[in-house]
Amino acid sequence: MSNYSICLDIGGTKVLGAIFDGDGKIVHRIKKKTRSSDNSINVEETIVALVNELMSEFGIRSDKIEAIAAGAPGIINNDTGVVLFTPNLPWRNYAIKESIEQVFGIPFFIGNDVNLGVLGEWTFGAAQGLDHVVGLFVGTGLGGGLIINGKLYSGHQYKGAEFGHMILNIDGPQCNCGQRGCLEAFSSKTGMSDYIRQQIRHGRSTMMESAVAEGVFRSKEMKNAYDAGDAVMIEAIDRACMYLAVASGNLVNMFSPQMVLFGGGVMEALGDVFLEKIIAKVNAFCLPSVRDSVTFAVAALGDDSILFGARALILEHRG
Amino acid sequence: MSNYSICLDIGGTKVLGAIFDGDGKIVHRIKKKTRSSDNSINVEETIVALVNELMSEFGIRSDKIEAIAAGAPGIINNDTGVVLFTPNLPWRNYAIKESIEQVFGIPFFIGNDVNLGVLGEWTFGAAQGLDHVVGLFVGTGLGGGLIINGKLYSGHQYKGAEFGHMILNIDGPQCNCGQRGCLEAFSSKTGMSDYIRQQIRHGRSTMMESAVAEGVFRSKEMKNAYDAGDAVMIEAIDRACMYLAVASGNLVNMFSPQMVLFGGGVMEALGDVFLEKIIAKVNAFCLPSVRDSVTFAVAALGDDSILFGARALILEHRG
Repeated sequence: MSNYSICLDIGGTKVLGAIFDGDGKIVHRIKKKTRSSDNSINVEETIVALVNELMSEFGIRSDKIEAIAAGAPGIINNDTGVVLFTPNLPWRNYAIKESIEQVFGIPFFIGNDVNLGVLGEWTFGAAQGLDHVVGLFVGTGLGGGLIINGKLYSGHQYKGAEFGHMILNIDGPQCNCGQRGCLEAFSSKTGMSDYIRQQIRHGRSTMMESAVAEGVFRSKEMKNAYDAGDAVMIEAIDRACMYLAVASGNLVNMFSPQMVLFGGGVMEALGDVFLEKIIAKVNAFCLPSVRDSVTFAVAALGDDSILFGARALILEHRG
Repeated sequence: MSNYSICLDIGGTKVLGAIFDGDGKIVHRIKKKTRSSDNSINVEETIVALVNELMSEFGIRSDKIEAIAAGAPGIINNDTGVVLFTPNLPWRNYAIKESIEQVFGIPFFIGNDVNLGVLGEWTFGAAQGLDHVVGLFVGTGLGGGLIINGKLYSGHQYKGAEFGHMILNIDGPQCNCGQRGCLEAFSSKTGMSDYIRQQIRHGRSTMMESAVAEGVFRSKEMKNAYDAGDAVMIEAIDRACMYLAVASGNLVNMFSPQMVLFGGGVMEALGDVFLEKIIAKVNAFCLPSVRDSVTFAVAALGDDSILFGARALILEHRG
């Protein structure tokens, strides 16, 4: 019986892969660093290699696999499996679904990573049973996902839920997207790292100095610096949480969701700290009438939200 | 045959009423100033009096009326006809549907005014045939409405689409809602009037001086001052449009709608001026990948958007 499935979380710097059994339990997993190259073939080769590796390590053939699914950054048509645009990977209007299906002879599905993260939490994690959920995933960037009327919402042409690029201060810091003062420019790892770099330039010292210099800003190091009372790190986190509170308030007033869900690597490492700070500020940024019907929560599946979302995508297509 | 319907737009300062014939044409209309009082009976009496007046003026009995529908500000459950909360009218958890139906023996429907305005434009006006529409209605306040997947979206407990209270600058001007730097505090008549009052206090002169002093800020007077080159009025409008552009960009990035639709009294009077200024700025606040699939438009039904939305509500309930 072909009731195993393979789920992937394809990031710009790392790939997670897992084999799920028919009961939805992860029975084998792989975590790898990736190097994105300048053509689409290598990314696809990475996926193919990873699937082969998972099958070989676990000792299973492709005829035992029901489907493969992946989450990736960017604008992705999750019905047709066409990657329309992705900021960190070299894909443009790329029909990856067909390519992968040709290689393995198994159905392949793909969707935006944070959309799938929210779908995963909604199907198997913290947001089960809710009809209206706003998700904010804090990592290198800051992504969004949205459940509306009990369904993943992607907007026209699958471009929706870009909550990371909500402008909260037109005079704010430059964002990678070209705008100024986006949520991502304040509250992502990139935003926090930029803030710390600026403070170092002003002559302040911080435990994060080498991380900032090397451009490798790990959530765990952030947590260590925060726990050690590093003033610059604490300021960066306070600022990130203040703008996450403003953005959450705006999203609450706009969608009136039942839950605002925080996920991603930063929340996995620092979820309690962030959630407490966000909740402490958020009331000032929500209309009272709307505030009393929303809860704020951290993703229950941690780093696996997107893997579980990929599994949910397979189940959805199973019908 | 009972194929006429009566539709109302119940504002804090004025009420519009219209009789529609079976073909959806307005055959009679009334426009009145209202005075909101401190108990719910008088507001209801206003509605009852207005319906009676419309019927008597047009010479029609209630057995010729299929249904009555109204748009009103606030949080309204448009399925049950319960007004949960309304900022300017004295209604709290008020089952107005039952009351009105008892008086006339005809079905009565009610919904949030701006939600209905967007529904009206989507059903009969500028946004026909689109699946994803964001509406911003600029008047004394600033309201929002949202069509998602070809359906009006109200959020959990009918509290959604409060786009006027999107915070765009946490150090911005005080809003009536208690927050600072909301879109409404920059871009509504109230926001523009506050800006002008501030400029007068700084010793500047403007044609809007008496309007601001009297607290009656008419769209037509604004247009006259703008057309006459009144510097303070122009600044207030430029600022309003800049923040409408920021808010539009945020909404575009969030929902990826096919259209951002601007309605309300200010747009009815100054639509061309506002739309041109908003479009000139908005590209800086949209992700390029999302921007190319959205259009910006002014409501086609003008002051009647909400009346037509009320009619759409009747048609929806007809099934």
